[in-house]
Amino acid sequence: DILSTLETYFSSDRNDLDGKQIVITAGPTREAVDPVRYFTNYSSGKMGFALAEQAAKRGADVTLIAGPVSLPTPENVKRIDVVTADDMFQAVIKAADLADVVIKAAAVADYRPAQVATEKMKKSDDAMAIEMERTKDILWTLGQMKTNQILVGFAAESERLDEYAKKKLEKKNLDLICANNIKAEGAGFNKDTNVMTLMRRDGERVELPLQSKHEAANRILDEVKRLDVNHT
Amino acid sequence: DILSTLETYFSSDRNDLDGKQIVITAGPTREAVDPVRYFTNYSSGKMGFALAEQAAKRGADVTLIAGPVSLPTPENVKRIDVVTADDMFQAVIKAADLADVVIKAAAVADYRPAQVATEKMKKSDDAMAIEMERTKDILWTLGQMKTNQILVGFAAESERLDEYAKKKLEKKNLDLICANNIKAEGAGFNKDTNVMTLMRRDGERVELPLQSKHEAANRILDEVKRLDVNHT
Repeated sequence: DILSTLETYFSSDRNDLDGKQIVITAGPTREAVDPVRYFTNYSSGKMGFALAEQAAKRGADVTLIAGPVSLPTPENVKRIDVVTADDMFQAVIKAADLADVVIKAAAVADYRPAQVATEKMKKSDDAMAIEMERTKDILWTLGQMKTNQILVGFAAESERLDEYAKKKLEKKNLDLICANNIKAEGAGFNKDTNVMTLMRRDGERVELPLQSKHEAANRILDEVKRLDVNHT
Repeated sequence: DILSTLETYFSSDRNDLDGKQIVITAGPTREAVDPVRYFTNYSSGKMGFALAEQAAKRGADVTLIAGPVSLPTPENVKRIDVVTADDMFQAVIKAADLADVVIKAAAVADYRPAQVATEKMKKSDDAMAIEMERTKDILWTLGQMKTNQILVGFAAESERLDEYAKKKLEKKNLDLICANNIKAEGAGFNKDTNVMTLMRRDGERVELPLQSKHEAANRILDEVKRLDVNHT
């Protein structure tokens, strides 16, 4: 019947990404204030690692570029560890060159301290301000560099999810954006589940139920596969 | 002979801290900027957890107040988990009330963002500054509250270690300070070894060789025991 046909078509047992070069980024970055203190975010890397694991199981040739997380490397995945937004930029731009698909699941710092103190800062009794500067925009750069690659981004928002996600999809020249409300029940950082909406450039949207990050990863890869079929 | 006598005296097999109420703090704190971003530091909690484990083995009644770390709770230790400097302050002041010894090994944030955004901050093309305010000084407060407790602090510095550690010992009214240069070979954050100098109020100093954090923990507890014997 049609259901089992669909199931087979979308099943992760198929070797349906065989030979595809997929670059996936995961985790947070750390931006030093001084030798002791740093600025970071709550990303655990679980979504990106789930994507890498499932893509490799489906036959893709996966490069996983990971910020500082405490997760084991999935089988048959080439892992590159980075720490700062600038490290991440260099590694992604280099790896993206030969990729068919780039999925940017990392939560890269938008800002970093403008000066990094080489010695530990001494405290005083006063308040102080930390001057922050913008980091390079990796996703925007990838969107500009893109020739026939499929580019997938994420939007993690605490409000106005649809509006912000659509804006990001266009501004960054993405093919697909995976939007999630970090305040939704069962979603967000360091959880094993997620609640996501997948939004395509042509306006099609898929609202996924609360499911494991591995199930969500397979649904994202299904959409990537569909985009790739139409693409070629 | 004298060496084996000393060895027995300082050995961790003795139940020499039996019945002592010891409060130990460990790990970093996290100070939120918004629902996604935060400030923190490189403390892994290993030194504080080693102290808690060894103190419990030596018969002490240990309360371990831990910031966000991924370490298992040592046997026979009562653990209280906290996240922010303010949580840490509340928990320590409450626990210190009945303690014989307080060892503050945690790397508590000195500063936190003056405002915490309730929604994720949107980036703009401009630089920005994060206004920071001082957190409450836990060690200074403990030094002021102290009646006949033994108070032990840590100084992790990247330069002028002796000068900064002595100043801290006096300013915070400590009995012992464990000073370490985070730039020394084999020392510092997330390592399993340390190189420390233990400085007492009366000017006595013990320079420890490069050794495991568990060995260093036992040496600190030896000094605490000696201070306690003179104390009573």
